[in-house]
Amino acid sequence: MIHNETIDTQLNHRSIRKFKDQTLTKEQLETLYSVFGQTPTSMFMQNASLLHVTDPEEKKKIQKLCNQKYVGAEGDLFIFIVDLYRNQQIRKQLDKDDGRVHTTDIFFQAMEDTLLAFQNVANAVESMGLGYVPLGTVNDHPLDLLKTLDLPELTFPVLGMQVGVPDQKPQLKPRLPYKFTCFEGKYNKDLNVKELKDYDQVVTTYYDLRDANRRIDSFTKQITGAKLNNHETDRDQLPEELHKQGLCLDWK
Amino acid sequence: MIHNETIDTQLNHRSIRKFKDQTLTKEQLETLYSVFGQTPTSMFMQNASLLHVTDPEEKKKIQKLCNQKYVGAEGDLFIFIVDLYRNQQIRKQLDKDDGRVHTTDIFFQAMEDTLLAFQNVANAVESMGLGYVPLGTVNDHPLDLLKTLDLPELTFPVLGMQVGVPDQKPQLKPRLPYKFTCFEGKYNKDLNVKELKDYDQVVTTYYDLRDANRRIDSFTKQITGAKLNNHETDRDQLPEELHKQGLCLDWK
Repeated sequence: MIHNETIDTQLNHRSIRKFKDQTLTKEQLETLYSVFGQTPTSMFMQNASLLHVTDPEEKKKIQKLCNQKYVGAEGDLFIFIVDLYRNQQIRKQLDKDDGRVHTTDIFFQAMEDTLLAFQNVANAVESMGLGYVPLGTVNDHPLDLLKTLDLPELTFPVLGMQVGVPDQKPQLKPRLPYKFTCFEGKYNKDLNVKELKDYDQVVTTYYDLRDANRRIDSFTKQITGAKLNNHETDRDQLPEELHKQGLCLDWK
Repeated sequence: MIHNETIDTQLNHRSIRKFKDQTLTKEQLETLYSVFGQTPTSMFMQNASLLHVTDPEEKKKIQKLCNQKYVGAEGDLFIFIVDLYRNQQIRKQLDKDDGRVHTTDIFFQAMEDTLLAFQNVANAVESMGLGYVPLGTVNDHPLDLLKTLDLPELTFPVLGMQVGVPDQKPQLKPRLPYKFTCFEGKYNKDLNVKELKDYDQVVTTYYDLRDANRRIDSFTKQITGAKLNNHETDRDQLPEELHKQGLCLDWK
């Protein structure tokens, strides 16, 4: 294994859900914004935006929408936004039609821009000794979130990030050994679930150490359980919500 | 601006399209795979896979599909894959139905996993003194690519990455000043395209220095030009191709 500052930090990544009661400095913010901007971007379209939520009332509303108590609490809250509005405005003001901004192709490229920027910022955050937790729950009620933040058409919240000075030291959560996820030359279509027995044990031990009073689920129990079982959720409305924002209109 | 090894490397990111004729060491590969695995993952589902393409014939085919001469040439070629096949197999072998693996919601979460892993690996690559170029063109003919790589249903190539020892020193490509992309408290809906005049000049100068013989386009000229103008492309088939892979089946 190769070691350097960046890689050692990456290999020690854990989500932080409890932060000290302090906010980022202006210098830290500006550094994160510069890193955001220097992320690779598809076709140089720069279809991502970042919103630092600072209004206490808005934070409370977002906390409710995300239904996670650490959202908008101690630390700083950021929303990573697919943004095709900016380029639409540029075209509009220069007397061009909307062109391809409403297509699935361009939306996917904007997703790439936004998610790559997320992880780039995440790595910068951790390199400063700060911690973060990704907030996938910004997708639970995206239209309400957009309204709360007064965001225009052709924008969509992709991920949130709560950032701050860690006030907890969680254990490292064990991931699938890379032989199951990273393939040399050929993808393995013949996974045998029995091969996951050792990993299941590692995951069970992790949960046991984290909180002996909570139900302990191995990895395969989680994958065969509630999160992927058939059920209805608000997130089944994603296609409809994207359409309402003017996105992926060619996908009918 | 805060400076450390990680951030300085991020702020110096440029795409590398010309590599020396050498490949990654086993130690480098294993380090990248470990970083891949430790990336944040939505609901702990680990819905991403990485394929290191090593077969010369496959590389040639992918180079044709991507239509970029550096794809599969010097250095190493990786395909970052949305992978819901693995968890489907786990469920199947444990006598469960496919559950939600065919939904748009779960596909989007897998996109997050995969793209976050891409940028995490990208940062590790650059921290080792190596370079890379993201390959969005793996989306141009995804079904042909999947067939070439013998990948199963419920997988989808999201981005490729050509990695290696840089054999060029490109200029830093100037991005939008962050006041246009990163917002404190409130998103600016009232962008005036005239405010982009200075940035347009910076971009024009960049292209001029890079290659005085090629046509020089400012940022706004690019956004109002061919790449976003209405036209048909193979990428308009993305929704259909996802469906053929068993993905986003609830989006009709």
